[in-house]
Amino acid sequence: MTTIFRLDASIRDEGSVTRAVATSLESALLAHVPDTRVLRRDLGREPLPSTVWAHALAGSHIPDGERTAGQREALALASELGDELSQADAFIFAIPMYNFGVPPHVKAWIDVLIADPRFSPRSAKPIAGKPAYLVIARGGAYGPGTPREGWDHATAWLKLIFRTIWGLDLTVIEAELTAADVNPALAELRGLAAQNLERAHAAAIEHGKALAGRFSEAEAA
Amino acid sequence: MTTIFRLDASIRDEGSVTRAVATSLESALLAHVPDTRVLRRDLGREPLPSTVWAHALAGSHIPDGERTAGQREALALASELGDELSQADAFIFAIPMYNFGVPPHVKAWIDVLIADPRFSPRSAKPIAGKPAYLVIARGGAYGPGTPREGWDHATAWLKLIFRTIWGLDLTVIEAELTAADVNPALAELRGLAAQNLERAHAAAIEHGKALAGRFSEAEAA
Repeated sequence: MTTIFRLDASIRDEGSVTRAVATSLESALLAHVPDTRVLRRDLGREPLPSTVWAHALAGSHIPDGERTAGQREALALASELGDELSQADAFIFAIPMYNFGVPPHVKAWIDVLIADPRFSPRSAKPIAGKPAYLVIARGGAYGPGTPREGWDHATAWLKLIFRTIWGLDLTVIEAELTAADVNPALAELRGLAAQNLERAHAAAIEHGKALAGRFSEAEAA
Repeated sequence: MTTIFRLDASIRDEGSVTRAVATSLESALLAHVPDTRVLRRDLGREPLPSTVWAHALAGSHIPDGERTAGQREALALASELGDELSQADAFIFAIPMYNFGVPPHVKAWIDVLIADPRFSPRSAKPIAGKPAYLVIARGGAYGPGTPREGWDHATAWLKLIFRTIWGLDLTVIEAELTAADVNPALAELRGLAAQNLERAHAAAIEHGKALAGRFSEAEAA
C-alpha cells in the first residue's frame, strides 16, 4: 500500500483554491490507486500553538533529563510531525501565499520539523527523491512585467526547504489571480483568472495520474 | 516628547545578537534624548496566539454586528498593534533570520497588522516617511560567493513590508555569522564573525546618535 501526506494551509474552507486544486490531484491519484492511504495535516484549520517551536528548539540543545515539561511536549510533537513525513511515499503541499509570504502557520510547522534531527539542514535527508507537489495560490499577478513582479516571497523559500533542504522531487502547480472574483481592482482579469484556474486543475489531474502510474509500476515490479 | 517603537523577535534572551545590537541603537538614542518614550513589543517572549490572524481577517470582511466573539477580540488586538505603530516617531525592529526565513511570530504579527485597515497595502500609509531600523542577524554567511548565497528569504520580504507597503524610511543593520561561536563548522570564521558584530554595534550606535540629532532638531524647530 502506498501512503501520501497532504498538507493544507488555507485559512478558508469554502473558496480555497489550494484546497480545490490539491483535491484534483488527490482524486486523480485515488481514482487509479484506490487503496492509497492519505495522512492529512490541516494547519489552516488547526495551526500549531505559537509557543511550540521555541520550546522544541531550546529542548533540542539539552539532554532529555534537563528538559522542561513544555520542551518535552514540543519535541514529542516535532517527532510526530516528522513521523508523518517519514511514512509517506509522496507529498501534496497546498499552501496559499498570504501578504507576499508564507503563511505563519506553515513557517512554524517547518521550523518545528527542522528542530527534529531528521529534518534539519544537516540531516541525511530521509525523504529525498520522493515525489512532491506544491500547490500555491496567489491573489494577484506577480509575473514579469506586472507591478508586483518579484513580490512573491513564498515560493522561493518553499522550494529551498522542500527541494534543497529535504531533497524532494518537487513539482510546483501555481494558480494566480485567485482574488479576481472578489477584488474589484482585478475585475478585468476575471477571464484570465478562470483560464489560470482551469490550467492549474488540469495540471493537478495530470500529475495525479502520473503519480498513480509511478505507484502502480512500483507495485508491479 | 518623542516616542519610539521597539520590536524584539529573538526567541533567546541571553546571547541574542539582534537584542544586543538593537539595544546599542536604543541606548545611543536615549543617551542624547533621555525623555524618549519606548513602546515595546516582544514577540520572542510572547508570540501572538496562532489563531488570531485568521479570526482578524475573517472578521474584517463582515459587519461588526455579525462578528463572533473571537473575531471581535482578534480585531481589537489588531487595532491595539496598529495603535502602537501609529504613536511612534521611529521604529527599531530586531528580527533574526530563522531557517532562511522570517520568524513565524513576526509573519503572524505583520499579517494581523495588515488586517487593520490602516496598515493594509491599500491604506494611506500613516507611518510613511518615519525613520526605521531593521536589525537582522543570520547565523551563517549568505553573501555573494558563499555556498548559501541567495538563501536569505527574510530580509527582502521585510524590506517589502516596511519600505514599500508601509513607506518607512528604512535602514538595515546586518550581523552575519552569529552562530560561529557555537557551530563547529564555522569555527574558522570566528574572527570574521567578531568583526561583523563589532561593525553592527558601531553602525547601531551611529544611527542612534543620528536619530537623536533628528529628534533634537525637530524639537528645536
